Amino acid sequence: MTEQQVVTELHRTLVLCLDLGGTFAFALSGAMVGIRRRLDLFGVLLLAYAASTAGGVGRDVMIDTVPPVALRDWRYLAVSVAAGGLAFFCTGVVKKLRDPVRVMDAVGLAFFAVAGTQKALLYGAGPLGAALLGMMTGIGGGIVRDVLVREIPAVLRSEFYAIAALAGAACVVAGGLLRVPVLASAVVGGVVCFGLRMIGIRRGWQLPVAGTPH
Amino acid sequence: MTEQQVVTELHRTLVLCLDLGGTFAFALSGAMVGIRRRLDLFGVLLLAYAASTAGGVGRDVMIDTVPPVALRDWRYLAVSVAAGGLAFFCTGVVKKLRDPVRVMDAVGLAFFAVAGTQKALLYGAGPLGAALLGMMTGIGGGIVRDVLVREIPAVLRSEFYAIAALAGAACVVAGGLLRVPVLASAVVGGVVCFGLRMIGIRRGWQLPVAGTPH
Amino acid sequence: MTEQQVVTELHRTLVLCLDLGGTFAFALSGAMVGIRRRLDLFGVLLLAYAASTAGGVGRDVMIDTVPPVALRDWRYLAVSVAAGGLAFFCTGVVKKLRDPVRVMDAVGLAFFAVAGTQKALLYGAGPLGAALLGMMTGIGGGIVRDVLVREIPAVLRSEFYAIAALAGAACVVAGGLLRVPVLASAVVGGVVCFGLRMIGIRRGWQLPVAGTPH
Repeated sequence: MTEQQVVTELHRTLVLCLDLGGTFAFALSGAMVGIRRRLDLFGVLLLAYAASTAGGVGRDVMIDTVPPVALRDWRYLAVSVAAGGLAFFCTGVVKKLRDPVRVMDAVGLAFFAVAGTQKALLYGAGPLGAALLGMMTGIGGGIVRDVLVREIPAVLRSEFYAIAALAGAACVVAGGLLRVPVLASAVVGGVVCFGLRMIGIRRGWQLPVAGTPH
Repeated sequence: MTEQQVVTELHRTLVLCLDLGGTFAFALSGAMVGIRRRLDLFGVLLLAYAASTAGGVGRDVMIDTVPPVALRDWRYLAVSVAAGGLAFFCTGVVKKLRDPVRVMDAVGLAFFAVAGTQKALLYGAGPLGAALLGMMTGIGGGIVRDVLVREIPAVLRSEFYAIAALAGAACVVAGGLLRVPVLASAVVGGVVCFGLRMIGIRRGWQLPVAGTPH
Repeated sequence: MTEQQVVTELHRTLVLCLDLGGTFAFALSGAMVGIRRRLDLFGVLLLAYAASTAGGVGRDVMIDTVPPVALRDWRYLAVSVAAGGLAFFCTGVVKKLRDPVRVMDAVGLAFFAVAGTQKALLYGAGPLGAALLGMMTGIGGGIVRDVLVREIPAVLRSEFYAIAALAGAACVVAGGLLRVPVLASAVVGGVVCFGLRMIGIRRGWQLPVAGTPH
């Protein structure tokens, strides 16, 4: 293999690992929401699967790598079912994590925002497209999860949610433009995204709200 | 035509018939939901069309046969409008079927799960991908129908819904691996899916619910 | 350039202008909905962006021009953010337009229905497919906007909404079949769509509602 091929191969492996990490985190968050809503076992697993794959499926459709990897590769299904089953049968343990839906959601957001941006770059999207696709990969699963249980998506209500995903994605795009090694820009992007989101939650940072129309 | 071409042609015809059958059933279910919600004529037709095409459109996008057949082929629109109009103008007759939304929904689920799996196999999806795409083709229309009228999708609440679609799809995939004639595996898959769903409704089978998180 | 190339180039430019006009209108409508729901700044911008791009993204996915232009071309994002920011910071001004969400929505509907149909024709969709894709481009953004804030989409409730989009799209398709210049058929289609929608609102035209099932 040439050096370029090795780099591309590493890039692919990185995307896979990030994707599976995000899948686990979002599947946990989806399952916890399903349990709260008292869905049965299969409903919980399905919500876990939907929350953990919707973002990546949307990304894959938009960069035309179909069928989406989450449907082709058994590991996505396995990770999602494992996380969903864990949440279902060990609800007590999972609950010990403080405010687990939100934390898991922030972890998934960071993993997916970075993975989505990296994959979009790998398949030739431009800088703007890659950043937007990364953001959408990050926020897509949570939107689908919330719409399915008839909640207004967290991303529309929460301080520093989509903006955290966009910041993380922008770091990865900047890293790509500056030819920083992909692992380094992935770490920076992920930390920025997770950090912004968690600080937003902790400090209750709020963006302004417009004066009510009269 | 060679024998292989004849088989492929039969396969395509089978997918078309199943697709149109599912379209009719889901269009009826969508129209009944729209009538219950007191939508006007065009709203009823639109909900019928959305319920009957969303699953197949999603499948076609994910196997990259675009524009989706439901948009290209006038028969899908015609069947959908016919079913919607029937439900709208002959509401009394349609209601004589016991619990018609659920029964039509189960019929559509079976037709679409089988058609979706067959078409995914025809276009080269692997066994896992084909089974998942078949399940999604089956459940997609009902999810969109329910989200549009702001209900939590039946698939998340109902005993043996998605699992019935997955079982039917798995039969078709197994039939493909064992080289069973496609018509035979379609019949078996459809009967398994419809049977599981109806038995689930009749007997009130429930999957377990996790202990409420405290 | 040959004459054919000049025509195609004009066609593309027309689609771009219509697309950006529709983007501005739907972004305003999405932002107004977000402000009413008291979303914060980023939530308002995100809802504006979702409302203004969802229809076109769906169209682009279905005619396989991916990544969707709304993600690739910075002008879509810029127009959407500008409209969202305008609505957010100048709420009073925007409100002076009578019933602004509905009017902006009708403008966006007309622009997108025409642009969607034109682009679908440009990429080789047949007459039926182009008309349906045009309708979906028009109504998609409003559906996503309403689902995200948990309202039943206006398109299912409002008199002459989707039907206006379909009528506008049909004019464009008819113009294409009759070899009318694209600009002319765009103007006619847009006026028909906007006109039908506004007349429907003003006069309170209602389509019939089915007798309640008993």
